[in-house]
Amino acid sequence: MGPYVNPDLQKERDGAGFDPENLTLELHGGVERVKTKRAMSAKALADLKVLDIPDFHFLSRTEQYNASMKKAVYFMKKDQNGSFANEEESYFYRNEMFPNENPPIGLQYAMFIPTLESQTSPEQKQRWLKDAKNFKMLGTYAQTEIGHGTHVRGLETTATYDPETEEFVLDSPTLTSIKWWPGSLGKTTNHAIVMADLLSQGKSHGVHPFMVQTRSMETHQPLPGVTIGDIGPKFGYGTIDNGFLKFDHFRIPRENMLMKYARVEKDGTFVKEAKNAKLNYGVMVAVRVGISLTVAAHGLAQACTIAIRYSCVRRQSELKPGGPEPQVLDYQTQQKKLFPLLASTYAYWFTGLQMLAVSNTIRAQIEAGNLHALSSGLKAYTTNGANLGIEACRLACGGHGYSLSSGFPKIYVHATPGATYEGENTVLYLQTARYLQKSVTTAQSGSTLRGSTSYLTENLPNKSAICQKVNIGCAIMAFKYRAMILVQQAAKRMSQLKASGKPHHEAWNLSAVPWVQAAEAHIEFYVVKTFAERISTVKDPATVSVLGHLFQLFACENILKNGKDYLMGGFMSSDQLQMLAEKSLNLLADIRPNAVALVDAFDYSDNMLGSILGRFDGDVYENLYKWAKASPLNKTEVSEAYHKHLRGLIHGQNSKL
Amino acid sequence: MGPYVNPDLQKERDGAGFDPENLTLELHGGVERVKTKRAMSAKALADLKVLDIPDFHFLSRTEQYNASMKKAVYFMKKDQNGSFANEEESYFYRNEMFPNENPPIGLQYAMFIPTLESQTSPEQKQRWLKDAKNFKMLGTYAQTEIGHGTHVRGLETTATYDPETEEFVLDSPTLTSIKWWPGSLGKTTNHAIVMADLLSQGKSHGVHPFMVQTRSMETHQPLPGVTIGDIGPKFGYGTIDNGFLKFDHFRIPRENMLMKYARVEKDGTFVKEAKNAKLNYGVMVAVRVGISLTVAAHGLAQACTIAIRYSCVRRQSELKPGGPEPQVLDYQTQQKKLFPLLASTYAYWFTGLQMLAVSNTIRAQIEAGNLHALSSGLKAYTTNGANLGIEACRLACGGHGYSLSSGFPKIYVHATPGATYEGENTVLYLQTARYLQKSVTTAQSGSTLRGSTSYLTENLPNKSAICQKVNIGCAIMAFKYRAMILVQQAAKRMSQLKASGKPHHEAWNLSAVPWVQAAEAHIEFYVVKTFAERISTVKDPATVSVLGHLFQLFACENILKNGKDYLMGGFMSSDQLQMLAEKSLNLLADIRPNAVALVDAFDYSDNMLGSILGRFDGDVYENLYKWAKASPLNKTEVSEAYHKHLRGLIHGQNSKL
Repeated sequence: MGPYVNPDLQKERDGAGFDPENLTLELHGGVERVKTKRAMSAKALADLKVLDIPDFHFLSRTEQYNASMKKAVYFMKKDQNGSFANEEESYFYRNEMFPNENPPIGLQYAMFIPTLESQTSPEQKQRWLKDAKNFKMLGTYAQTEIGHGTHVRGLETTATYDPETEEFVLDSPTLTSIKWWPGSLGKTTNHAIVMADLLSQGKSHGVHPFMVQTRSMETHQPLPGVTIGDIGPKFGYGTIDNGFLKFDHFRIPRENMLMKYARVEKDGTFVKEAKNAKLNYGVMVAVRVGISLTVAAHGLAQACTIAIRYSCVRRQSELKPGGPEPQVLDYQTQQKKLFPLLASTYAYWFTGLQMLAVSNTIRAQIEAGNLHALSSGLKAYTTNGANLGIEACRLACGGHGYSLSSGFPKIYVHATPGATYEGENTVLYLQTARYLQKSVTTAQSGSTLRGSTSYLTENLPNKSAICQKVNIGCAIMAFKYRAMILVQQAAKRMSQLKASGKPHHEAWNLSAVPWVQAAEAHIEFYVVKTFAERISTVKDPATVSVLGHLFQLFACENILKNGKDYLMGGFMSSDQLQMLAEKSLNLLADIRPNAVALVDAFDYSDNMLGSILGRFDGDVYENLYKWAKASPLNKTEVSEAYHKHLRGLIHGQNSKL
Repeated sequence: MGPYVNPDLQKERDGAGFDPENLTLELHGGVERVKTKRAMSAKALADLKVLDIPDFHFLSRTEQYNASMKKAVYFMKKDQNGSFANEEESYFYRNEMFPNENPPIGLQYAMFIPTLESQTSPEQKQRWLKDAKNFKMLGTYAQTEIGHGTHVRGLETTATYDPETEEFVLDSPTLTSIKWWPGSLGKTTNHAIVMADLLSQGKSHGVHPFMVQTRSMETHQPLPGVTIGDIGPKFGYGTIDNGFLKFDHFRIPRENMLMKYARVEKDGTFVKEAKNAKLNYGVMVAVRVGISLTVAAHGLAQACTIAIRYSCVRRQSELKPGGPEPQVLDYQTQQKKLFPLLASTYAYWFTGLQMLAVSNTIRAQIEAGNLHALSSGLKAYTTNGANLGIEACRLACGGHGYSLSSGFPKIYVHATPGATYEGENTVLYLQTARYLQKSVTTAQSGSTLRGSTSYLTENLPNKSAICQKVNIGCAIMAFKYRAMILVQQAAKRMSQLKASGKPHHEAWNLSAVPWVQAAEAHIEFYVVKTFAERISTVKDPATVSVLGHLFQLFACENILKNGKDYLMGGFMSSDQLQMLAEKSLNLLADIRPNAVALVDAFDYSDNMLGSILGRFDGDVYENLYKWAKASPLNKTEVSEAYHKHLRGLIHGQNSKL
């Protein structure tokens, strides 16, 4: 006999119409990669046991930071000792070790070392890189200020060159210039690459990066002239010390300016190197697609896993009068909450995978603008969807979803900043919109459009042929139609405003809302198309059939959500929408028997989910009770609050105010 | 010179087109009530200073519980000493003292004493009420079990009568029968009214309430046979000890059954009293409307206050190339995020006020079913809206919204359980839907419909006359049309399913999604209508004009959101929708100059908002910096984690694994 599995959950697994392992291989990149994933996951789980880390949810914020540091240092030493054969192994191990947590030294790998590798002179590489890789120098990247976000021109920190001493004087001249938010800046790192406005010979030369030691290598105390600390507790991200940094005329050697693209001579002459620093679109594309995958798709996939498993374990109320309490997932309303989110998860995940593959091949090509516009919008589209979806999953689990033991809160607070970091979502949609607007202008000038916007000049059918079957071609055509219509509307509003005498920037702001809607429609079309393309590469017929249901549900739900746009110009009829509404209800019933297998296929460990409701074995109530009993307030039978406050009330003592 | 106010915020206030004080009086019930509100708020703020409670966000969960207990005991003693002239004074004082917090003894007032007053015999009142009012007995109400929610028939806790000893034996026969969630049950109270299945003479007599002492009056230790504790940390609600309670054949005297409606004789004979316990619809209506007001409307109002003030203080990026950084609220996209939420807040608030007034007059009448259906749906509608809206406000504030100092997380985690407690929202919509379905059946039988569903038999115009002016009558008619159409569609699906041979309960489940949509449309129609009615009672023309813009925006946004429904049957044209879309963009510009005054009118203290971003004086950055410096991780310059973990890494010590 195998280990215990809740019989309701076992029945679901036994009744699935396909083998989830096939889908796991699709999602995680094939047999070899899944093998590595599972091996590294097992290794991390074993190490976690040895490290004896307490339950995350029982820890105060400071304790979360300490616990994560313990794991991070353990991991870094292991990495240093060559325990991982390649980046893939290291990635899967780290993933399992820090489930929905930001380790306090993550930026050493993500920003500090890469910046040293890409923005320094050969001498500087020589000087710093070894220490950075040995973790003697622990660093971060400090750009954002308390009063200034992504708008680099607004940064106020100054680096004034003093030719007398051949030093830069770093200063925070205003309150709003204090560096704010950089990860690991507050308490962990001893160095930071600081972005500051370079002033020399009485003139500003724009914002440049400087290597700044912030803390003593001996004592870890902040250096004189540096005020540094943690920015305080956040919604989540308790394990990382996002920090502040304020300079009071703090001096660094001239040679600490990162000198690959520009430098200052001893006498203060500013020299721009021939090769210009330009935005690396390939990296930006990879980062944003990465967020769509690892933050949005994974966050939503985890939430769906928990909610769907628990909805099979939980029995509640009655469907048939006087009958037994049914599984919650048998309620149509519950299916309607969860299955569209499950479909979105697969859509995000497959689109992300596909785009990553494309970006690797085209990265070097001239498709950069197109890919950049798509990846910006995809990040906005998926993180918005995940934000709403994770919370919808939590709420679908009733009261127990609100307990930290459900795992949802941790998943949500980890995923939700994805909507604001690496480009706030509205700003990103506007980037996509600018590309659309440029495409419209290009088309109007008679040039041919290439890439993702080429449909803007296509002749689309003026009636949708969509019917009960919701076939892929008709569905994709519908999304294409909507994108085209919304782009046209935004462009029209913009040109009307300009014709009425508004300057370009004002016309742009006054049509920004329709442009954002057009960008969202453009991305949704891309997602539908890409989701379908990816499904078409799957071999196993049973798997294809199940994915087909998800695709259809995704299409129906999103057409209905913006139904009015499809009715415009008579492209669809009200009857067609009504038919899709009925179809989508039928699809819920089609998906129902495969729901558990579809979330099992994501292949998350219980450690990763961090959820008692979503346990693989479905042994929910026993473990909820165990968890509650272990929680901090139950350490003593009688609480401190009783002795300090309640006792006097009950016994009428100290009752004078 | 007055105290400092951020000049950008002052300019907004100086430029408003109406006096927010007029609106404050409308929102808070007139001059006298606002005077009381402000006096009690000032009193509470002064007392809070004396009590010296630390910053909520710097506390661990246990510390939050302790701090709240200190305040609660202080308040209860004050209440006992007759410090408040009436319930209104006490309410406003409590409100300010526990901003978005659940005090750990709140249920003493909300459930324990009221149940003692309504469900006991005269002798029992005599025996218990004085001790409850003196806080000797601290009690709660224990119904929900770990495996059973609102479905009372599913409860498993048993109370078996033993005629030998004339006692009831309380028992938790299964894991799923453990009482779970009741507030203050875990560590605070020493009594609980426990709902259990009464077994006597070998027969079940249904679920009844029993008075159970859970902890020693002397030592506060759990009594033998009682296992009791806190259910562990949650997303929020850190200040209250939601608890679990497990009985192991725990005996209580026969006289501890609450005996107003039923009792057990010494020999075990079960006797039902003539007067039956029936659901008090008046109380349920008041509770649900109360949630719409105090949880949904207030939560969203607070979030809007923070986001709108901060969007005037924050300057970011550029509108005009090379120009200064504009106030974020000048971006059309930012207005589009916030102003529809502001409009919803006013709609919820005014509808809640109106409904509370109506429920007070009709409560005794036969309108109960109608009011119950409306209040259930209103609770679902407003708490769903607030859930999404509060988070949208947070995300509209970029990175800083994610810091606990923004106040959003506390507001959100306090408001969000409103979607699941006192009736999970989908369950509530289905209650509304059942009333709609009954109305349809009534109408089909030829009877006249009264009350809120009478429109179902009206002859509505088949074309909407809505135009650029969005006049009130046309807007209301549109929402009425949509509600009627959706009710008809759901009813049609249901009767088709029944005609095809499905039994009623199955047809109901298979049309539950359309029924929920119909219920939501019915409530939205009611909200629009009631919002308009309430505005029509306002006297000051400038205020009426501003509210008119909010009404129009609310109408436009919601029509557009479900645009396809209005196009159905040709009721509206695509051109009309397009016109409303443009109108709604123009309304954003109309509302812009009054936005700050519209949130000032809510009249929240800084203590209530708990937000540095939303401070009345707009002195955001200085105070963010101050707050960060005071946060726990900054207590020492060098963290514990450095000494324990980091030092070894940096200096290459202890590097063996």
